[in-house]
Amino acid sequence: MKIGYLGPEGSYSYEAAKTYSLEASLINISSFNQIFQGVESGMLDIGILPIENSTEGAVTPVMDGLMSMRAARIVGELIQQIHHQLLSLGALEEIKYVYSHPQAIEQCREFFKRELPSIALIPCSSTSEACRLCLEGGSEYGAIASITAGALHGLNTIASDIQDNTHNQTRFIILGREGTAPTGDDKTSIAFSFFDDYPGSLFQVLKLFAEENINLTRIESRPAKTELGKYIFYVDFKGHSSEEAVMRVINNIKKITNKLINFGSYPIGKSF
Amino acid sequence: MKIGYLGPEGSYSYEAAKTYSLEASLINISSFNQIFQGVESGMLDIGILPIENSTEGAVTPVMDGLMSMRAARIVGELIQQIHHQLLSLGALEEIKYVYSHPQAIEQCREFFKRELPSIALIPCSSTSEACRLCLEGGSEYGAIASITAGALHGLNTIASDIQDNTHNQTRFIILGREGTAPTGDDKTSIAFSFFDDYPGSLFQVLKLFAEENINLTRIESRPAKTELGKYIFYVDFKGHSSEEAVMRVINNIKKITNKLINFGSYPIGKSF
Repeated sequence: MKIGYLGPEGSYSYEAAKTYSLEASLINISSFNQIFQGVESGMLDIGILPIENSTEGAVTPVMDGLMSMRAARIVGELIQQIHHQLLSLGALEEIKYVYSHPQAIEQCREFFKRELPSIALIPCSSTSEACRLCLEGGSEYGAIASITAGALHGLNTIASDIQDNTHNQTRFIILGREGTAPTGDDKTSIAFSFFDDYPGSLFQVLKLFAEENINLTRIESRPAKTELGKYIFYVDFKGHSSEEAVMRVINNIKKITNKLINFGSYPIGKSF
Repeated sequence: MKIGYLGPEGSYSYEAAKTYSLEASLINISSFNQIFQGVESGMLDIGILPIENSTEGAVTPVMDGLMSMRAARIVGELIQQIHHQLLSLGALEEIKYVYSHPQAIEQCREFFKRELPSIALIPCSSTSEACRLCLEGGSEYGAIASITAGALHGLNTIASDIQDNTHNQTRFIILGREGTAPTGDDKTSIAFSFFDDYPGSLFQVLKLFAEENINLTRIESRPAKTELGKYIFYVDFKGHSSEEAVMRVINNIKKITNKLINFGSYPIGKSF
């Protein structure tokens, strides 16, 4: 089985792919679009993509990419607890400069302000790149990255769990080409737009869910990319497309929307 | 009057600031946060901030920044039609390299593929930086930027309106510290979160708007930044806070939400 993830090796997406399957061959891919295309064409069996972070919000290129899917489906999800580590070849007292991706630096800013105010935080392109620069620099340099990235690059963990928000989580979707059977604890993801693109129309759709007692877990809007004020709405809700209430609600939404896309039903993810 | 905008001079935010007032002194500011702080502290009378683009969607740092406002209010909006120009010192046949901000390059990609497939498109930090690099490089270099940026840098327009999507628009909000009187054609922007943070609760809020026949113009969700599944909803709707129906709906929303913030009522913006 071939699983595509957003590289480089050691990234948080790599950790998610390893959690999904230890036996599969993991393929390091350089863009979200190539992961979508790989699953579409059958070059990849599975694609792993981050869709939402508890601090940063929606990963918009992935949201937009869903609209290009034809054969591909969402077949699962994974919730990752983000644990940032301070990695280095040196000891804590030696470190003067710390590299990381700007988002990771942002997520550890209070830790450094409180514990290590004299260290200079230097942004770079990824947490893996930070590890590489830290190895090159020697014992005066550190990197903020995951345990996995540290192990891959042979760096030591100098301080653990240095993220300021202990609930920092990323949700990944798992793309495949075959639908999943209901498990009794499933979720369905859809997107729709309206003929008149008047956001109040959303009320009519939410009413249909309320009437069927179906719980929503997420609502997002994205621009339709034509003009301001025209939106595509993304809704995740509990239930599987094979359930009668879900079939009814989807049929009723179709009647009042311009376009409805069902991205798939899948088991509700556990966190790791 | 001091108006702060996101620099450098010649940026699309600069164009918006000039449209807002030709007489004011325009102050080039390097971050969204400093614009919010400037209006809060009174160092700036007015701040101009992009909040939404028809292709890219919400400008999330500005959405999140709204939550930090205390004295500042939204006092207006402006809709900018984005017109990208190909600027250069040379003639069309001479140009081999074109610089611009990655978003501007993306928005003109079809034009270059169709008309000038041999030109190399090179990303840089801003459309103004592109003009600077183009001036430095000489007649083999071009920049994608606005007419205003071209005039500021003394570059000629070699091809006009080269954006692929003719409806490319950016909506700017205008921040100030004094509320605006109703004009009869106003909008109000609010944000709220729920006690139980269950997205289905949004249905109850939208129902209140529907009962009062108040039209919504935009709904966005942003993470509450605590954990996955907890959101802040942003809603723009027609009407002014001084109108009875609007007062009623705001009072009723307060009863079913954890927190409600009213960012202000302001005249519906015209496009330029």
